[in-house]
Amino acid sequence: MLKTLRVPSAAIVLLAATSLPAAPADDIKQPTGYRQWFHVNTMIVDKASPLFDQLGGMHNVYVNAKGLAGLKKGGPYPDGSVFATDLHEYTVSDGSYVEGARKALATMVKDSKKYASTGGWGFQLWGGGDPKKPLVTDATKQCFECHQPQKAQDYVYSTYLP
Amino acid sequence: MLKTLRVPSAAIVLLAATSLPAAPADDIKQPTGYRQWFHVNTMIVDKASPLFDQLGGMHNVYVNAKGLAGLKKGGPYPDGSVFATDLHEYTVSDGSYVEGARKALATMVKDSKKYASTGGWGFQLWGGGDPKKPLVTDATKQCFECHQPQKAQDYVYSTYLP
Repeated sequence: MLKTLRVPSAAIVLLAATSLPAAPADDIKQPTGYRQWFHVNTMIVDKASPLFDQLGGMHNVYVNAKGLAGLKKGGPYPDGSVFATDLHEYTVSDGSYVEGARKALATMVKDSKKYASTGGWGFQLWGGGDPKKPLVTDATKQCFECHQPQKAQDYVYSTYLP
Repeated sequence: MLKTLRVPSAAIVLLAATSLPAAPADDIKQPTGYRQWFHVNTMIVDKASPLFDQLGGMHNVYVNAKGLAGLKKGGPYPDGSVFATDLHEYTVSDGSYVEGARKALATMVKDSKKYASTGGWGFQLWGGGDPKKPLVTDATKQCFECHQPQKAQDYVYSTYLP
């Protein structure tokens, strides 16, 4: 279980590029109502992480009803499944890591035809959660390459925690 | 907002006793279905915290529908409001704090008459989430004393994060 969470569910990891074709990401709409979705898990990425610059903060991961059915099975996920990672700042006081303001919102949207080149998933990340600030311009390089090792779980890192 | 979260929402802080009368806690039933409730916030308490022995771990706080209405207003909470704190172990790897197995389950249940002596809230904590292992024997000393400073928010520390 632990291994499956080492990289965030909606990972936006800006790692080295490969020769995969670029996939458009600018057509992804922000999920709405995700604060009422199933809370999948939470992870904190702090300064000791090589991912801190891109991913530092508290990651609260949610999934919609269609996606929850897939999560419980460990994949595959039906079209219409959506994950949202609500990334928040946090403060540390006397050993307590406390959730702060929203830093970004990330999503994975399953549409097996539309996003066939990236495992059937569309990816996007918005700075500050602002729909006018999409930050992913090449989902293959910025997102999918890091999800490829999770092919057996339909490219999702999170597992179901009852 | 940060200040309101420094002590866990379902705090089970074993601090010094006062002269308040003891309140029974052994009649509280475990909440069911809380993993489908609204995710209020998450907090990590680590070894640097004076609360670590009692409260160390990742606190995922949930509230039921009745309680969510109260949370959005900042209190008061109607009878039937229930908070659940799903306390998990966590591991740290390369700067990522990752959720692990369940360590305990805590709850606050609002019944203004039944629990009048503890601000209208009943409190309980179960080791390992096991309904056969209730750990609170005196809700006044073990729970309510730490919640008293939050009277203005109906004794709840958490605030609503949209």
